[in-house]
Amino acid sequence: MIPFNKPCTIGNELDYIKDAISLGKLCGNGKYTNKCQSFFEEKYGFKKCLLTTSCTDALEMCAILLDIQAGDEVIMPSYTFVSTSNAFVLRGAKIVFADSESNNPNMDCNEIEKLITPRTKCIVVVHYAGASCDMEKVAEIAKKHNIFLVEDAAQAVDNYYISKTGNKIPLGSIGNLAAFSFHETKNIICGEGGMLVVNDENFVKRSEIIWEKGTNRSAYFRGEIDKYGWVDVGSSFLMSELTAAYLWAQLESIAKIQTRRLEVWNLYNSLLKDVQSKYGCTLQTIPSHSTNNAHAFYMICNSTEERGGLIKYLKENDAQLVFHYLSLHKSAFYSDKHDGRELPNADRYSDCLVRLPIYYDITNEQVQKIAEKINSFYADYTK
Amino acid sequence: MIPFNKPCTIGNELDYIKDAISLGKLCGNGKYTNKCQSFFEEKYGFKKCLLTTSCTDALEMCAILLDIQAGDEVIMPSYTFVSTSNAFVLRGAKIVFADSESNNPNMDCNEIEKLITPRTKCIVVVHYAGASCDMEKVAEIAKKHNIFLVEDAAQAVDNYYISKTGNKIPLGSIGNLAAFSFHETKNIICGEGGMLVVNDENFVKRSEIIWEKGTNRSAYFRGEIDKYGWVDVGSSFLMSELTAAYLWAQLESIAKIQTRRLEVWNLYNSLLKDVQSKYGCTLQTIPSHSTNNAHAFYMICNSTEERGGLIKYLKENDAQLVFHYLSLHKSAFYSDKHDGRELPNADRYSDCLVRLPIYYDITNEQVQKIAEKINSFYADYTK
Repeated sequence: MIPFNKPCTIGNELDYIKDAISLGKLCGNGKYTNKCQSFFEEKYGFKKCLLTTSCTDALEMCAILLDIQAGDEVIMPSYTFVSTSNAFVLRGAKIVFADSESNNPNMDCNEIEKLITPRTKCIVVVHYAGASCDMEKVAEIAKKHNIFLVEDAAQAVDNYYISKTGNKIPLGSIGNLAAFSFHETKNIICGEGGMLVVNDENFVKRSEIIWEKGTNRSAYFRGEIDKYGWVDVGSSFLMSELTAAYLWAQLESIAKIQTRRLEVWNLYNSLLKDVQSKYGCTLQTIPSHSTNNAHAFYMICNSTEERGGLIKYLKENDAQLVFHYLSLHKSAFYSDKHDGRELPNADRYSDCLVRLPIYYDITNEQVQKIAEKINSFYADYTK
Repeated sequence: MIPFNKPCTIGNELDYIKDAISLGKLCGNGKYTNKCQSFFEEKYGFKKCLLTTSCTDALEMCAILLDIQAGDEVIMPSYTFVSTSNAFVLRGAKIVFADSESNNPNMDCNEIEKLITPRTKCIVVVHYAGASCDMEKVAEIAKKHNIFLVEDAAQAVDNYYISKTGNKIPLGSIGNLAAFSFHETKNIICGEGGMLVVNDENFVKRSEIIWEKGTNRSAYFRGEIDKYGWVDVGSSFLMSELTAAYLWAQLESIAKIQTRRLEVWNLYNSLLKDVQSKYGCTLQTIPSHSTNNAHAFYMICNSTEERGGLIKYLKENDAQLVFHYLSLHKSAFYSDKHDGRELPNADRYSDCLVRLPIYYDITNEQVQKIAEKINSFYADYTK
């Protein structure tokens, strides 16, 4: 069976874990945490990075930093992972779900402005499958209405928005705040882990306090104050050095990992052209304002039944394809809190989107086998 | 310099991490998570255990499970770590701080009942330095007033309450819920990590949902439901398998670790008798209703100045002694929210308690050297 995902181990992970153990510091904020944070700050120009135990936790830090209060409204896509919304619901926010674009699952930025009310505190964009949202448009809306912009960049490591003037702007550097994931299903991994990015200077100092359980411990260790104490809310957001050591090995090899994933992506894309042209099953499209970090390779089937058949057929032929999110506005938890608007594109992706195995260790032969079986499924299915 | 703490690596940690990597599952809820959870359930009779990213996060799960709402009151000691309170403050609770006992930092259980109001939702006891609170008394109060009981057992791994009838009851098994820590400063470690214990059957099902980001994913993987979705609030509480693998190696050797720590504790205790009898500096006492897990060895100095002098003298003689919590009712964050009651015992521990190095790898020679220097400090100090 070719699994949907296989966590990548690229080389130095165990050596760095061994080193972390030998250094006698296994809690957070040590050598490897600092190396990883500096890497992101230097390579992508993020103002301040803080490794966290998950992307979910980084999003929770965003909600705390933005001082979300009961009744504040937060606009986000319905087609996203539960953590995007839970992080804000936990602070009392009302979630206002927006539909996806017709040709890709990212939030339709033309829909945002009509959802803004005097209670709107923030827009959370999600770069689905790593592909950039229309960041100039959404940043302009946020600025015009004086509301905050958060990037849920869980899937968007090492990817770029292409501006109207042709500049490549790193995803995660545009919002006031951004959150990344290093969960084992992502391009760059450490098992469970994430990172908060603070681009807005106004949030830098407080982000460190919230990260350190609501204490001014970081300032204490820099010698800025005599003793540290409880000064704010906060939680235990620090990533263990064991995990950060694994992450550092991955970051050292980020170019190698990304190059291989893009090869796999391009191979799928070329081998499945017929499925699109002959059978109307849409292959993933990368928006013209985005580069491709090959986080996922997905297709949009013509129906839920077709998708079910395809998944079943591939399973019988030893490969695991999987669908993705269920629209959050229709979830058991939130459907009675949603305002009733139909979000047909989100529903279509819920019903028809299917993802193919893509990871560093997959071989060209495996990709070819999967593509071949998909082609033969469609040849039979549409007979 | 003899450090205050040195994280322990007992033997199989790297082998198990290597194994976790080879199994191709590095996110949470895998082989090592299950081994660790089963270990605690079987050895201590905890009903349900869930590994978390930290003890803080386990306490946050408690606050969510108890459905803490804005204005609900939670009684806890002032002499504790910020996480005990932050976890409940994040859900909107008003914290009602209780004083410590006169002869040890645990909450004075005789003070609890007068703090109970119709808004009191829960009592959180903290087993300071691992030593048990008076659990029969506090359980009786909670039952009488129909409020919940949570054990912050961060420091209390493998320790027991001794009941009036002489039974040894594992700490963490008595409250409706309990939280443990495996931070590198604890007896059993994994860098950053913790565990929620659910003893109250009413919370078992929902604890799994909150642990899995507010989804019914666990039920899905057990085949109980067809697909999983968003059914509740929640967060990303799972501990990575990398970390759980490290933890499992420690649990395998728990007897060895605990035996050595207790030897160190007993050595300090015998070598420092004179300090107590001659100079009035009180050595740590273990309440008669508690066993000793040797999490810490501490002394209570006669004054803050004496403590400062002692720490300075030991530092000059190459050993690191450290004080501990600042009373939370006097913190910058909470002093204006506290009701003004004086908590003199908590303040005394804030001002005068000092902790000595105690860890698996410390040698008898190092302990002897530290004790000797403490004795010579007092001989000079009181001349």
